[in-house]
Amino acid sequence: MEIDLSPLTDFLVAEELDAYLIDDDATDSDQRYVSGFSAPDAYQTLVTPDGEIHLLVSGLEYGRAVKESGADTVTRHATYDSQELIAEHGRYEGFLRVLEQFLEDRGVASVAVPRSFPTGTADGLRDRGLEVTVESDGIVGELRSVKHDEEIEHVHRTQRANQAAMAVAESLIAGADVEDGVLHHEGEPLTSERVTEEIEVALLRNGCSLDETIVACGEHGADPHDRGSGPLEANELIVIDIFPRDKETKYFGDMTRTFCRGDPTDEMRRRYEVTHEAFEAGLEAIEPGATGAVVHDAVCDVIEDAGYATFRSDPGTETGFIHSTGHGVGLDIHESPSLSPSGEELEVGHVVTVEPGIYDPAVGGVRIEDLVVVIEDGYENLTDYPIDLEPSVRAEPSEWAQAESTE
Amino acid sequence: MEIDLSPLTDFLVAEELDAYLIDDDATDSDQRYVSGFSAPDAYQTLVTPDGEIHLLVSGLEYGRAVKESGADTVTRHATYDSQELIAEHGRYEGFLRVLEQFLEDRGVASVAVPRSFPTGTADGLRDRGLEVTVESDGIVGELRSVKHDEEIEHVHRTQRANQAAMAVAESLIAGADVEDGVLHHEGEPLTSERVTEEIEVALLRNGCSLDETIVACGEHGADPHDRGSGPLEANELIVIDIFPRDKETKYFGDMTRTFCRGDPTDEMRRRYEVTHEAFEAGLEAIEPGATGAVVHDAVCDVIEDAGYATFRSDPGTETGFIHSTGHGVGLDIHESPSLSPSGEELEVGHVVTVEPGIYDPAVGGVRIEDLVVVIEDGYENLTDYPIDLEPSVRAEPSEWAQAESTE
Repeated sequence: MEIDLSPLTDFLVAEELDAYLIDDDATDSDQRYVSGFSAPDAYQTLVTPDGEIHLLVSGLEYGRAVKESGADTVTRHATYDSQELIAEHGRYEGFLRVLEQFLEDRGVASVAVPRSFPTGTADGLRDRGLEVTVESDGIVGELRSVKHDEEIEHVHRTQRANQAAMAVAESLIAGADVEDGVLHHEGEPLTSERVTEEIEVALLRNGCSLDETIVACGEHGADPHDRGSGPLEANELIVIDIFPRDKETKYFGDMTRTFCRGDPTDEMRRRYEVTHEAFEAGLEAIEPGATGAVVHDAVCDVIEDAGYATFRSDPGTETGFIHSTGHGVGLDIHESPSLSPSGEELEVGHVVTVEPGIYDPAVGGVRIEDLVVVIEDGYENLTDYPIDLEPSVRAEPSEWAQAESTE
Repeated sequence: MEIDLSPLTDFLVAEELDAYLIDDDATDSDQRYVSGFSAPDAYQTLVTPDGEIHLLVSGLEYGRAVKESGADTVTRHATYDSQELIAEHGRYEGFLRVLEQFLEDRGVASVAVPRSFPTGTADGLRDRGLEVTVESDGIVGELRSVKHDEEIEHVHRTQRANQAAMAVAESLIAGADVEDGVLHHEGEPLTSERVTEEIEVALLRNGCSLDETIVACGEHGADPHDRGSGPLEANELIVIDIFPRDKETKYFGDMTRTFCRGDPTDEMRRRYEVTHEAFEAGLEAIEPGATGAVVHDAVCDVIEDAGYATFRSDPGTETGFIHSTGHGVGLDIHESPSLSPSGEELEVGHVVTVEPGIYDPAVGGVRIEDLVVVIEDGYENLTDYPIDLEPSVRAEPSEWAQAESTE
């Protein structure tokens, strides 16, 4: 993928800085995006005003870096006698001396760094007379927020795998036997943990992995980030939020559905309907030029009109709609732009979730979430999965991984 | 688990600093260790000289943080009108103002921060007149390197799951049909990708996840970090390196075995034997008071005596033993101490890998790795899995997850 780093190089020229430097590991998506490479241990990426990319990696990563990265040059720490320097000065000071030589060899005396750049490295370079300036606008993050077609297809593929996993989870709940108000599967109580395990296996079979999943019943579901645990109960709201990552492309997907096996109360049904209405209102507000704040307001309007609190109507509330409407999704599960009071202007190519919810420990939680991409005349939904409080057995879960999105 | 933060609080007192501040997310194991909490998005952990721990988290994480963390106080960003501040000043400046108030409320005017602390936050606090000093010795990392019994059991449990996964992989290779020199399973070529998938499913069934696994055949295996791809071949060396993480405890395991299906060449056999001998020499050198450098030297001696290059005999070599002997394992897959030229003194409770290898694209790669804990009279091996170049079908892979370690 050809990425355009000109906003970054223009910044370097305007600020009269010699380079942009990243010092992080595979967990930093900015570095992955800029270098076209990732590694479990820390490595360094240098972008010069001419747009060239230079990597500094461990000997262990050298072979892969040369093969896989899009860098113009790849240098091993050992080139600067890293082992000897570390043995003599310790890992921290030794690394700083290696980095100092790497920069010196490229005539770099001043660098811009991301906000997340390690203070230890920044101060170490400053102690050596280099100028270190924080690039505080997050230029790379902004670059990443506007997706190329190739990236949109990556997210779409992950979301299809996500649909197959949701179908497995929904089918387990829909097909469970109810004994003493508890869902049972194959004679055992059906727990959040068991459903989560089957979601993860389904994702693995579709090339995705995930660190955490939310399968939260009743009161658990009323805490938006409670992962859920224990037996799933009938007549309770069950929130299932799955955010897998494709193991090859590293792009995320994100979807939430809420189910109730048995008889939801009228209040549960009402909250589900209000959330669904707010969800639709949010989607309708999405178009290029609209701000994330406007989309968030459209969602809050519906929820507040129905008589439920939001952070907008009561910043201190612990019930009602107690999070923002959505967030960008790409190489990070949470990235720019945001659909929140501080939400910036939406652009074609932004990929965002729309995920209103209503929460109360006394009732449980409801959340409905799709993942969409902003297009010229509004949005295209990258999710194609039914929205229904009552769970159904999905005959062929794997088929949902092939499903085409609605346009 | 009761952790002793006195080395950190002693440092604060000695340096006359008001607190130690971490600003990171779940990927930072130091913060997980100190706060007893983790979250997908950034949160802040403040340790004061009296040993109290104060968390600053998003509203989304508040409920879990109160329930799960060992913190003395938990504060929500919203307490400081974060939404309004972010809406007015942007996410970056808004967050800095929230953090500034959080510190001010606790009378904190000077902080020590880890080397990895975001430069953006450090410079932002400095611009506001706060003193920010990098704690460059990595006190928390040192604390983490000496494991409590509870942590050792966590690592041991992960390593047992690892054994079950290795048994699945070894059995696939041992049981494969050989057609035209390529391993086949159920009529299909047996690929690195397929073996990796079965490893991951086995790990999931045992409560573990992993981002990457190495199943590297032939030339792939000669690059220590090549994950491997494509069909596995007979009469070639196949390196399998599995480093899973328990999803509940978050502690890692790590093990490598090398197999050859069919007839390895005499040179392959010799490299396997030399690697195995170096592996045993490394284990024998492990005891409290010995340095990681001494253990590394013991391994290099064997490999060099057999006529193969190491980074010690030739820092620029791209064949032979081209990495260090081992590393600490815990909440991070690579942590202190290291078994390398810069390896520090080993202490009771250190958990380290011993993983010599010999690499050459013309022959392939050999690596043998176990995970051990340093004890009073040497080491206890947390790994109990056969070491044999010729793969065997393991009748009940899951039993390896229950296996007791040899003592």
